[in-house]
Amino acid sequence: MADLISIRDLDKPTIEKLLSVSEKMEKNLFTSYDKFPGKVAATLFFEPSTRTHLSFQTAAQRLGMSVVPYYHAASSSTKGESLSDTLKIVDGYADLLVIRHPAEGSARYAAEVCRHPVINAGDGGNQHPTQTLIDLYTIQKAKGKIKGLNVSLIGDLSHARAMRSLLYGLAMFGAKVKLIAPRGLEMDSQIVEEVKEKFDAQVEASEQLDLAGADVAYVCRIQKERFSDPYQAAKMQASFRIMPELLLDAKQDMILLHPLPKIDEIPAEVDASPHAHYFQQASHGVPVRMAVLEHALKEG
Amino acid sequence: MADLISIRDLDKPTIEKLLSVSEKMEKNLFTSYDKFPGKVAATLFFEPSTRTHLSFQTAAQRLGMSVVPYYHAASSSTKGESLSDTLKIVDGYADLLVIRHPAEGSARYAAEVCRHPVINAGDGGNQHPTQTLIDLYTIQKAKGKIKGLNVSLIGDLSHARAMRSLLYGLAMFGAKVKLIAPRGLEMDSQIVEEVKEKFDAQVEASEQLDLAGADVAYVCRIQKERFSDPYQAAKMQASFRIMPELLLDAKQDMILLHPLPKIDEIPAEVDASPHAHYFQQASHGVPVRMAVLEHALKEG
Amino acid sequence: MADLISIRDLDKPTIEKLLSVSEKMEKNLFTSYDKFPGKVAATLFFEPSTRTHLSFQTAAQRLGMSVVPYYHAASSSTKGESLSDTLKIVDGYADLLVIRHPAEGSARYAAEVCRHPVINAGDGGNQHPTQTLIDLYTIQKAKGKIKGLNVSLIGDLSHARAMRSLLYGLAMFGAKVKLIAPRGLEMDSQIVEEVKEKFDAQVEASEQLDLAGADVAYVCRIQKERFSDPYQAAKMQASFRIMPELLLDAKQDMILLHPLPKIDEIPAEVDASPHAHYFQQASHGVPVRMAVLEHALKEG
Repeated sequence: MADLISIRDLDKPTIEKLLSVSEKMEKNLFTSYDKFPGKVAATLFFEPSTRTHLSFQTAAQRLGMSVVPYYHAASSSTKGESLSDTLKIVDGYADLLVIRHPAEGSARYAAEVCRHPVINAGDGGNQHPTQTLIDLYTIQKAKGKIKGLNVSLIGDLSHARAMRSLLYGLAMFGAKVKLIAPRGLEMDSQIVEEVKEKFDAQVEASEQLDLAGADVAYVCRIQKERFSDPYQAAKMQASFRIMPELLLDAKQDMILLHPLPKIDEIPAEVDASPHAHYFQQASHGVPVRMAVLEHALKEG
Repeated sequence: MADLISIRDLDKPTIEKLLSVSEKMEKNLFTSYDKFPGKVAATLFFEPSTRTHLSFQTAAQRLGMSVVPYYHAASSSTKGESLSDTLKIVDGYADLLVIRHPAEGSARYAAEVCRHPVINAGDGGNQHPTQTLIDLYTIQKAKGKIKGLNVSLIGDLSHARAMRSLLYGLAMFGAKVKLIAPRGLEMDSQIVEEVKEKFDAQVEASEQLDLAGADVAYVCRIQKERFSDPYQAAKMQASFRIMPELLLDAKQDMILLHPLPKIDEIPAEVDASPHAHYFQQASHGVPVRMAVLEHALKEG
Repeated sequence: MADLISIRDLDKPTIEKLLSVSEKMEKNLFTSYDKFPGKVAATLFFEPSTRTHLSFQTAAQRLGMSVVPYYHAASSSTKGESLSDTLKIVDGYADLLVIRHPAEGSARYAAEVCRHPVINAGDGGNQHPTQTLIDLYTIQKAKGKIKGLNVSLIGDLSHARAMRSLLYGLAMFGAKVKLIAPRGLEMDSQIVEEVKEKFDAQVEASEQLDLAGADVAYVCRIQKERFSDPYQAAKMQASFRIMPELLLDAKQDMILLHPLPKIDEIPAEVDASPHAHYFQQASHGVPVRMAVLEHALKEG
């Protein structure tokens, strides 16, 4: 089990171990640089990415690995080679592959084609498991635990892949989840039923944006491009912005998270609030991905 | 002689040494990482490339070198600087230059302009010497020798630069070569005459796609864009595909090679055949290029 | 003072120290590779660049740092994230940021937003302080001193940012500066007055292209795109080219500098002249930027 394609591939003890290794990595960020000398990570980014690509490159190099980056924009994809062939060739060069690809299922396919460990860095609207690990790590680090916390997931819960995976992870760890989405953008009920059954999870839903009682508020953006009526989209976004006034109702130690990039849904003035925790969250991308890379190389 | 511009720059003992060093590199892929600490390889790719650029970057880093990559797409070429100036500047930064450029002769020119060793990673339709070394290494590794082997070169032999260089290398090492090309796409007769005279090489030609008797079948694609009549091109490609039935006539230990990327000329179902050897061939890109880089730095 | 945004941020002792460290770096180019193991430099290039990006990457890696490069062309800027957010996120990954951005003032803004040291690699037409350090280092290395030298700055002095910063640096170090520009492209008189007052600098101006008496001639190009009348621009460029005949009047040990890329303003045949010193100048990009990176990490 050296590949990491979906958060569902990981059982609870493995996630707990990854979170604990992430903590060690964060503490020893500058002393891990000779863990994997001579090992090469290929980062195959078939669509543009800033945060994810930079943090995987940083994580690999902080472990002493070399990085061989593939940028779609600079590649010879026009020659008509199949994805399978490209993967097999890079698998012959590197010790590990990190892949982002617009097609759902592409990462699972890559794991089947390649002999070396494959880490999914986002396959279309499907899975982005290291994001979920970063989210769980951030919550546990800030709160000392996940079990029993009141966590609100806020925004367009029907389209955001991060939210579906996070609900699964939170349920597994025993958080109480409130799903706050505008009507029509609710979380898929099948997933809600699944985590209730599998983890005996406490999940409630609401259309009302309200932060009272939450220990963690996790916001994602309204995806305007999904609406046929731009007036309706703008109205929905406006009613789901985290305005400074809204934070007055929040618990004093509530943390506000966001997978980033954020646009309108959190105004820039909120960045200065003590609740704002999304840049720390982003910075955890490096230690968590270091833990994931180490895990993959040790198991692979 | 630290530069590597054309396979013709290398005499037989030097090639033999490079193949032998490649073997050592492949065996010690993970223990060579401190051979050249602090050395910097600039990889100047003036046209898109996936395989070649990634494998050179991997090879350099496996030797402990740093890589400074130049992507044409991300560069300020619009400013109108001459190629000579760009080369002289990068020559002032790095310890070695790897160059791919669409203009024939550009790599030779770079070697004249630069003080540091220059390795040609493909100059238009002209030379790509490390590809030929990879081909020779793959054949020798699979067969234990090159001398006396029956090697068929198959496809559009009039346009593929890889095939001309490979014919030269095979002839030098005493293989018996069969050139199988559709009428009108035959290998340039001047090159055939040259290797017959220089190496007393056994070279025969055929229009008939037939694998019987071959120890090695090396396929390249029909370059459809060279034809004015697309129907004619499609017909020619169809008659020169390596269909599974065709492999029934092959010797049991025949290996099928291809410089990749492949498109139509080898159907995906052939990948599973024991004859298919092109992904191993591609993976040799790293150890062979490690040998070439080491050679260049030691001689330079 | 770990950031480097403008040459004006540096006092004379700091510049002298940086030039002296640059010299050590140049002498020990291959033995500095384990100075900063495990440290990561993010190079954020929001516009295309060849020389500057490659030399910063080379410098960082020669110091044993890892590089995480951001190419605007391969990024997901379309998502609408603010520059501030992008900077904060990368600040959470890396130990130091090198930034090039088309907007004037962007580097200063980055330094305010980021906790880690920020080095300005060019913010629009504003500042490019490491270029000035390279220029001063090159002059001092070639001439053994800067004080008292006759330095001519030649070309479009009204638009070239490199020239304004260099005038400031030369004045600080006591060179006698002659500003040679076609009428209408003179250096901003405010800057001339400032350095006269601040450093008691000797600065004279001329419209006449003449190299007699100069120890250093520093040329920049006429920016044709600034002219409404292309005939006028071509005429001006023609009258300000460094033709080989012009060099006959120069002192035998005069050095000719240029920030590169050069186009028409210095014909290629001048490259072979003993006066031509611009490729050495370019090669100093690596040791000088090594000194700057070391300074930033030690102070930061």
